[in-house]
Order: sequence, then structure tokens, then C-alpha cells
Amino acid sequence: MKTLFNGQIVEKDEVAISFEDRGYHFGDGLYEAVRIYAGKMFMFSEHFDRLERGAEKIHLGLPFTKSELGKMLEDLIEATEVQNGLVYFQISRGIVSPRQHLIPEKGSVTPVYLGYTLPFERPVVLQQTGQRATVIPDMRWLHCDIKSLSLMGNLLSLDEAVKKDYDDALLERDGVFTEASASNAWFVIDGVIYTHPDGNLILPGITKQHLLQLAKENNLIVIEEAVKVSQLADIDECFVTNSIYEIVPIVSIDGQAIGDGKPGPLTQQLLALYIASTID
Amino acid sequence: MKTLFNGQIVEKDEVAISFEDRGYHFGDGLYEAVRIYAGKMFMFSEHFDRLERGAEKIHLGLPFTKSELGKMLEDLIEATEVQNGLVYFQISRGIVSPRQHLIPEKGSVTPVYLGYTLPFERPVVLQQTGQRATVIPDMRWLHCDIKSLSLMGNLLSLDEAVKKDYDDALLERDGVFTEASASNAWFVIDGVIYTHPDGNLILPGITKQHLLQLAKENNLIVIEEAVKVSQLADIDECFVTNSIYEIVPIVSIDGQAIGDGKPGPLTQQLLALYIASTID
Repeated sequence: MKTLFNGQIVEKDEVAISFEDRGYHFGDGLYEAVRIYAGKMFMFSEHFDRLERGAEKIHLGLPFTKSELGKMLEDLIEATEVQNGLVYFQISRGIVSPRQHLIPEKGSVTPVYLGYTLPFERPVVLQQTGQRATVIPDMRWLHCDIKSLSLMGNLLSLDEAVKKDYDDALLERDGVFTEASASNAWFVIDGVIYTHPDGNLILPGITKQHLLQLAKENNLIVIEEAVKVSQLADIDECFVTNSIYEIVPIVSIDGQAIGDGKPGPLTQQLLALYIASTID
Repeated sequence: MKTLFNGQIVEKDEVAISFEDRGYHFGDGLYEAVRIYAGKMFMFSEHFDRLERGAEKIHLGLPFTKSELGKMLEDLIEATEVQNGLVYFQISRGIVSPRQHLIPEKGSVTPVYLGYTLPFERPVVLQQTGQRATVIPDMRWLHCDIKSLSLMGNLLSLDEAVKKDYDDALLERDGVFTEASASNAWFVIDGVIYTHPDGNLILPGITKQHLLQLAKENNLIVIEEAVKVSQLADIDECFVTNSIYEIVPIVSIDGQAIGDGKPGPLTQQLLALYIASTID
């Protein structure tokens, strides 16, 4: 498997990470997963902008410009001949020895970055049948806007849902839905589409931003406002979004069917709009 | 540098971590740092018990017993000839390819673990002069009892304090002090010693447990109860504890001197008791 490693495309087994990389000691780094359609990255520019904002927040100096990283990932996609799939990218702080909690001055340590691709096709069945979610407390940190490698909170959320025999977790903080374990959550109530506003409690999804725009262009009523868990019985449709799976309907929450237990009409309309927007 | 790596003691440069190790992708793992005095680990058994409790919480099967890990670390300490210092140990979930958030079934993936030593002497000057702290919001997750590798929240707390020109952060959640960026926090008010109770908001410190016992044995009044940040003016003494630095006085908080701005009498008494307890 061809892998991008610190600017070079090498074979996977040529990539060796030091145990003193702060990515390994602390989860000190950032990542992005960019969708590939027909051999091209989708919304790479927006992913890069989010990476850059995250880097600013954790005081990590990115060792490349947008166009430089774009070129590296394009070369990787070409080398791996992926038509549809994703390119995963991560950057960690780099090696500091001996280990210390203190974040080093920007520029004093060389970051370590890598990327690889994964081919797959649109999960059509998943998008048609949907998933069953359960509501669990949002135990994550209060910088969820940073797409950090410190993901233990997200992992445990999904794990708890799966152990309870659900497909995914809808996270609740202070009585409202924040997001799902690795995607933004959306709710339709009386024809109005709701999703949690950006801020420190959720990841500002690239798919979320794109879908907000598509919805507005198509005169759908969409509001960035948190939905209370106590409104569960009023929810007509629910779905989650991320770059990988696009839009996945949630057909039941804690065993209670949402709508008639099938993907709702607005969910389907948005999915169609989204898919159309991915085709040049 | 001799390093423990998956059961073998090897040279540091023989340790290569896969980028597909979930420790690197997700901060999915646990760690401990055990103090070494006179060539021997201090309270290893308690550290192991905490590691085991954390492993249970994140559904990680430890591939060794307490005595097996103890033996490996003892061999490492002997090989590195450390008299005083620490032994750092971490275990990550292991390699899963392709990357997926879902936590694999216990036992289905081989964990990766490593250890290394660092020699140092008791930080006498630090313990005599103390540190200046600042109060910042506790933005960490709600599983602070798990000593996880996903440490970005702790790193950012310390970073914020240092950027404000303080030595450390005292973290505030819901109006009370939880702990410091990498240690438990203690406060003396009117002769009574307070520290936050264990639970999901703080790390159950090994040094904390030991000091609680020492205090009780010496008829000091100690209560595991959170101190409100609004009580700041009433605080006569403050200190933080962890296995590495033992007891470090906090001599000012946000520029306001604690007591007379020097380590207080109970702080000094506890430090003397603690140091005495580390000598066989």
C-alpha cells in the first residue's frame, strides 16, 4: 500500500513511527478524512481550512501550504489508483524526548504526517435502510471543534452503543443532542430541519456546512439550533452526516421508531441533493 | 537507551511503532509512570491496579499479570541502572487495519506495550519554592479517572497556563477545583486539608491515596471534598501531588499569594511524611 509519509510516497512497511512521537504518547495531533469521487478529492479546500484552524488552536505549525498538501494527496490518490473512497490524513506534533506534557514552541519540533487511501463505493444499502441509535451522555472534552487524535471519548461512545446492540450513539449534553459518535446529527420536526450550531461542543462538519448550503439553495427551512432530548417524540426524521457516509438515516432511537421507521422524505431529498452535488 | 517492547528489552532504535497502531490513530491506550527510589519501584502494585481498572473500562485485555509486568519493569530498571527516577509504561490497543472507530473485541487484537526509565533526583528546589498557578476551565472529558493516552485536554490546560506565564493550571469545573493539569490538587482551609473526591472528574492519584493515609495516620484532618473557586480568599495552603514530583506547593493563584506566599506548615509536614515513607 502506497503511503504518504512526511512528503514522500513510500510503501506502507517503510513507515516507522517513533514511540516518542507525541502522537503516540499523547494523541497530540490532528486528522482529516477526505472523500474521493471519480479520482478527485471532494471539498479538500474546506478540509484543509479546518485542519488549519485546529492547528492554530493546538499551536501546531503546519509544514505545508494548502496547495502543497493538495498536491501530495493528489499524487497519493493517483499512485493508489483510487476512484471512489477516501484519503485519510493525519499530522502529529512529532518527536520530543524525554516525554513532557508541555507543548513545545511552534516550529521547534518537526511534525510527522502521513496519508493513505481506502477505496470503497457509496454505502447505498446503509443509506436506504438507515441505522438504529441510542442516546448516551456526551462524555467528550469541551474542544470537540478540534479534530484531534485524542479520540478515546468518541471510541467509548460508539462502543457503549454497540455493546447495547445499537448501531451508533446520539450524544446528549445538558439535555440536548450534540452529535453522533463520529458524525453530525440532524432532526426534522414539523418540516423544519435542525442541527446543533457550531462551537466547542461539536465538530464543524464539512458535510454539515455543505448540506446547510444545499438546503438553503433549495428553499428548505433549516435552523442551526440544538434539539432537546425531551423532544424525542416530536422528531419526524433524523439522520447523521459525515464525509465518508454522506447521509445516513436514523430510523429508530432507543427502540422507538422515528417517523414510520424508514428514511423520511426530507432525508431522502437531502441525500439526493448531496449525491448530485458530488457529481461534476 | 534500553527499552521494554512487548516483553523484550531492546535498544530504543529497535522499537518501531506502526501508524496503524490505535495508540497512534486514536490515543487508544493507557499509561502509568512509576517512581523509582533506590533502584526499586514505589507503589507498583497500586499503579498496576489502576492500570487494570482502566483496561477494564476501555475493554482492553492486559497481556500480562501484575507479577509478570512487575518482573519486566524490574528487569528494565536493572538494565538501565536507574537508582532514582521513574519508569514510564504504556499499552495501546494494537494494530487494526483498516482504521475503524469501533473498539475491537477484547483479545482479538494484540496490544502493544513499552516501557522506559528516566533517571532524576527529587526536585528539592521546586518542592521548597513552589509554583504559581492560574485557574482555567476544565475542558477535559468526563472519564478523567481513566489514565488514557488521549491527553490533548491535559496538554492544552498546561499550555494555556504557561502561555499566561504561570507554572501550572488549576482546573475549574462547575465552580470547584477538580485537579491540576497533571496532578491532584489539595487545599488547606482553617487547618483542614481538602482534596477532590475520586470519581469521573479526576485521576485517582496513587500519591493522593498514599498521602490521605499518611495524613490520617498522623491525625491530620483531611476531607475528600471539592473546594469552590469562590473560596479562594480563604485558602491558607495549596499544593499538588503526583508520583513524579511528590508534593509541590502552590504559592500563588492568579497572582494572589496563598498564605504568606511560601509553602505552608501542613504542606511541609506532609512532604516530610511523604519523603520519609519512600525510604525503606
